[in-house]
Amino acid sequence: MKKILTISAGLAAAMAASPALAQEAAEVADPSANVAYIFNTLLFLIGGFLVMWMAAGFAMLEAGLVRSKNVSMQCLKNIGLYSMAGIMFWVTGYNLMYTDVTSWIGSFGPYAMQAVGEADVDTGYSVASDWFFQMVFCATTASIVSGTIAERVKFWPFMIFVIILTGFLYPITGSWEWGTGWLDQRGFSDFAGSTLVHSVGGWAALAGALIIGPRLGRYVDGKMNVMPGSSIPLATLGTFILWLGWFGFNGASQLAMGTIGDVSDVSKIFVNTNMAAAGGVITAIVLTQLLYKKIDVTMALNGALAGLVSITAEPLAPSVLQSVIIGGIGGAIVVFAVPMLDKLKIDDVVGAIPVHLLAGIWGTIIVPFSNSDATYGVQALGIVSIGAFTFICSAVVWLALKYTLGVRPAEEDERAGMDISEVGVEAYPEFAKG
Amino acid sequence: MKKILTISAGLAAAMAASPALAQEAAEVADPSANVAYIFNTLLFLIGGFLVMWMAAGFAMLEAGLVRSKNVSMQCLKNIGLYSMAGIMFWVTGYNLMYTDVTSWIGSFGPYAMQAVGEADVDTGYSVASDWFFQMVFCATTASIVSGTIAERVKFWPFMIFVIILTGFLYPITGSWEWGTGWLDQRGFSDFAGSTLVHSVGGWAALAGALIIGPRLGRYVDGKMNVMPGSSIPLATLGTFILWLGWFGFNGASQLAMGTIGDVSDVSKIFVNTNMAAAGGVITAIVLTQLLYKKIDVTMALNGALAGLVSITAEPLAPSVLQSVIIGGIGGAIVVFAVPMLDKLKIDDVVGAIPVHLLAGIWGTIIVPFSNSDATYGVQALGIVSIGAFTFICSAVVWLALKYTLGVRPAEEDERAGMDISEVGVEAYPEFAKG
Amino acid sequence: MKKILTISAGLAAAMAASPALAQEAAEVADPSANVAYIFNTLLFLIGGFLVMWMAAGFAMLEAGLVRSKNVSMQCLKNIGLYSMAGIMFWVTGYNLMYTDVTSWIGSFGPYAMQAVGEADVDTGYSVASDWFFQMVFCATTASIVSGTIAERVKFWPFMIFVIILTGFLYPITGSWEWGTGWLDQRGFSDFAGSTLVHSVGGWAALAGALIIGPRLGRYVDGKMNVMPGSSIPLATLGTFILWLGWFGFNGASQLAMGTIGDVSDVSKIFVNTNMAAAGGVITAIVLTQLLYKKIDVTMALNGALAGLVSITAEPLAPSVLQSVIIGGIGGAIVVFAVPMLDKLKIDDVVGAIPVHLLAGIWGTIIVPFSNSDATYGVQALGIVSIGAFTFICSAVVWLALKYTLGVRPAEEDERAGMDISEVGVEAYPEFAKG
Repeated sequence: MKKILTISAGLAAAMAASPALAQEAAEVADPSANVAYIFNTLLFLIGGFLVMWMAAGFAMLEAGLVRSKNVSMQCLKNIGLYSMAGIMFWVTGYNLMYTDVTSWIGSFGPYAMQAVGEADVDTGYSVASDWFFQMVFCATTASIVSGTIAERVKFWPFMIFVIILTGFLYPITGSWEWGTGWLDQRGFSDFAGSTLVHSVGGWAALAGALIIGPRLGRYVDGKMNVMPGSSIPLATLGTFILWLGWFGFNGASQLAMGTIGDVSDVSKIFVNTNMAAAGGVITAIVLTQLLYKKIDVTMALNGALAGLVSITAEPLAPSVLQSVIIGGIGGAIVVFAVPMLDKLKIDDVVGAIPVHLLAGIWGTIIVPFSNSDATYGVQALGIVSIGAFTFICSAVVWLALKYTLGVRPAEEDERAGMDISEVGVEAYPEFAKG
Repeated sequence: MKKILTISAGLAAAMAASPALAQEAAEVADPSANVAYIFNTLLFLIGGFLVMWMAAGFAMLEAGLVRSKNVSMQCLKNIGLYSMAGIMFWVTGYNLMYTDVTSWIGSFGPYAMQAVGEADVDTGYSVASDWFFQMVFCATTASIVSGTIAERVKFWPFMIFVIILTGFLYPITGSWEWGTGWLDQRGFSDFAGSTLVHSVGGWAALAGALIIGPRLGRYVDGKMNVMPGSSIPLATLGTFILWLGWFGFNGASQLAMGTIGDVSDVSKIFVNTNMAAAGGVITAIVLTQLLYKKIDVTMALNGALAGLVSITAEPLAPSVLQSVIIGGIGGAIVVFAVPMLDKLKIDDVVGAIPVHLLAGIWGTIIVPFSNSDATYGVQALGIVSIGAFTFICSAVVWLALKYTLGVRPAEEDERAGMDISEVGVEAYPEFAKG
Repeated sequence: MKKILTISAGLAAAMAASPALAQEAAEVADPSANVAYIFNTLLFLIGGFLVMWMAAGFAMLEAGLVRSKNVSMQCLKNIGLYSMAGIMFWVTGYNLMYTDVTSWIGSFGPYAMQAVGEADVDTGYSVASDWFFQMVFCATTASIVSGTIAERVKFWPFMIFVIILTGFLYPITGSWEWGTGWLDQRGFSDFAGSTLVHSVGGWAALAGALIIGPRLGRYVDGKMNVMPGSSIPLATLGTFILWLGWFGFNGASQLAMGTIGDVSDVSKIFVNTNMAAAGGVITAIVLTQLLYKKIDVTMALNGALAGLVSITAEPLAPSVLQSVIIGGIGGAIVVFAVPMLDKLKIDDVVGAIPVHLLAGIWGTIIVPFSNSDATYGVQALGIVSIGAFTFICSAVVWLALKYTLGVRPAEEDERAGMDISEVGVEAYPEFAKG
């Protein structure tokens, strides 16, 4: 979601007065601009805490889909990555993405909260609320990676990757579009981040999965061994948390609710977001029934998430029917892509590559279907350029980690589970293994 | 929660201008009406996402209270029903419930989101936000059913029932009251749906439980076999989620917060809702201690839910003390009704009939106690008419499903658990059974 | 968070009119004051439901960190204490804390919701919304106690302690500061309750832990036996819930968002709150890696919570960097204090004493570091006076309970777990014990 750069008329007039008195002047001159400022800021705060909550959603989804011997590690990685993303988005990320972006990159240096009356008033919302909202998006990108490469990556190499992803890679491609860089100037359209957030996370995860390789014993003699997740209810809880959080993710990406038009748009986005997810679930359920005669609940869960990712690039323009269709195709992508990845021996523990990368591409390329301002060519340009940058940089980082620190635990540690070797705390110490 | 049909004065004046310019005209003519529009819409959005979150609450409550061999199925049913409810409330539900309702029924046809400036401005809130809020209420009704008849109903017959319930039955009785139909015209009072949502779900569940019969081995030789739930913390989590969501359920049913009076009413509703739940918990705890010398935690959880259902028909008028009493009696109903149902050999896996049907009736009939606009006679009329319609129609549907598709799994499948036979994914594959 | 006592100018003028017409008068005289009233009330409602949700966070954290034989009891205690806190804060708490406070104590008597137009209008927000927000703070204090003394305290003595804590002890010390009593008059500063909420809970827990003693078998022959928690993902979920709820806890303690300045301050508080938690996590992770060569995930979780408690006394004044440091030191306190308590044979099951008491003291004493209005001397005075009062009174209550009702279950009941002896419902009845 691009930052708002235009200045509302009333505030601009007020700003002509002495800067020191700008806030008070604005409040007197144009009470309705003040009200809009409060509404816009409140949208960022509510949207922000909903997206922050998605960190818990990823944690539960992944804790439910890994084997019990790696659940504590997955919990640790998720709270660690969310914390580190916040720190890196403060140290370099926000300014790199949003400050003084010419075409390719913003400026270096930590984000500093200004006092109100200086930088805040001319933007129409509190800069701190915007920072909070953008930060939780950045953290989401990192959450995507941890799921794909679960159960076989040591803690510290993972955290180093998170530092680079959240402090540099995500903000750089983000600056191209939401920082009003070159892709934005060419008309690329990605409302809430099918590409900028979800595919970026997906490309980073794919690079990791290819370089790190599958879990021990996953593919043996050309056969895939099923490694079922330890807790379906936790995975279900995680999916519902993510669905809830997505109302903030897409809805608050409207970036404003200080007018009738804006708040009505936020409402439409809520409806479309929900219906795309519903379309993804129902499609995944019907397809798995037809293809496998059973209804794999994990496909239904990932169908919801794929529907959500699919609508994220354009949640405002589609009709309800279009949203159901866009999300439904996202759900179908998951059903077909999950076994395809296994054929390619790409071990994606939670299905994040189909959900975030493939449905993210689908959602981005289909924007012109409902929004005539976008063109298929420029959408493809954005997908390819951001994908290439992220995939190549991620691969370089993973390779560097592989040949320096090492990424994988020792074989016996991986077999025993990293909860013992690295965390020292078992997730379910009292339950006998079946 | 009835739709607001009155038009605020400022907006009505603005509407006299050319419709094409209505939005801009309204914004200029009466800034405070615009602000109220934004507040009202925001209330629907916040209330809506809180009630959407209740879908996760039901999923966790039910996942915790069924046996582990049916947990994946229960998760699948819950995400499936929430998705299907959204689709059916779009395809037929909303218009049947709210559009052109004369006395008995609305109009057929899918809901289509209008552009702002046409239908939205004259209502005082975004129609899309209202649709979202009403949709999650509809989904709640279906969530109630899945718990009672858990562990013994195949997936597809259940989903067909959900389609009929959410696309037709719930909207039809809803139109009688919230669609300003015949019950509303007689003065029936059900603020947020003790009857329209909770009892409707409860009647549909009761019809199902009677026709489908109890789980295999539940009642043998006149004795009830306890079939304890697989995870008390998940059931507790589900209860807390529902409690949280209920602030949206009852609070946003005020339908407006654009004035001091409205937002203060929402605040009172928050307080009363919380206190009724607290009364339900404490009553259930004290009664189980006295009756059984132990404090069954599932009774405390259902006591909270019964307190919440009880206050839902009238969360605004009661004093704090009245709310505690109304909720407390709801909690007592649960403690006495749960064993009573077992004596009747009605197998209600999660206790949804006492919580949603009986406490729903209690909450509806007691409205005149605190709200002098309501009368006991009309309250009884509403309870009986909506109950009869829902119970009879539900029974017909369950019977039709029973004698066509069949509702129950094969006996060996039910014994093995539907996670194996229908889902193909075990909920806890690694934990040995005790 | 102190109640707002000043009356906004527009409203004060309006109040000069006849009280009966005050509401309408105010709405006509000063529309912007009405808008501020709505925003302020909305802040309390959103903040309130977020803090209410923390009750679920404590329940999950504690359910995850106790052994499986006491999980049902821990769930029961948490829903019981939240309910009882609400009732007691209504019966005596609110008025004792906020009404007619001279220096030492408020007035006795239950809180009664007034109609709008009488008490509400002159405050700038709905009194009911304020009551709701203050009530969930009171409940948080009780939640802290249940974790420390888990697995060895019978249900009813615990509930009696909760009654006294939430109905009397918490409100009395609360009145000293937020009720504008003697500590507030001397300039003590505790924005959202590092001392008033968290340390009060911590002191009550410490008194309990000392008087009740450790769990059977915890310290034998000078050796500490590790008693690992039953579910790390539930503990992780609980931590994320608390982190989410803390945005309401600290953010809404600004008590107003009806101006640009206030809503921008709320935004800053969101950022600082998040960064302090992040600092706590990263510090705890790094320190446990260095000290123990493994990264105990429970330390990372408690590091987050300690960071949150640390910033709670002053979440507005610090810069981002200061927030990271303040929270980081909170995380370090946890890493060093947890083993220290074990050396002292103080058995704190979930680590609530380091998190809430010690980090609460740290957060309170460090306020002058970023806020020049506070002084170290007065901060120390507040910490000591509130600590002494709470610790002594709590100890008296625990001793009285110990020598009358008895606090601990029979030895064989404690060994078997209270889920069997008191609740009669096992948390995980189907999983074999390892």
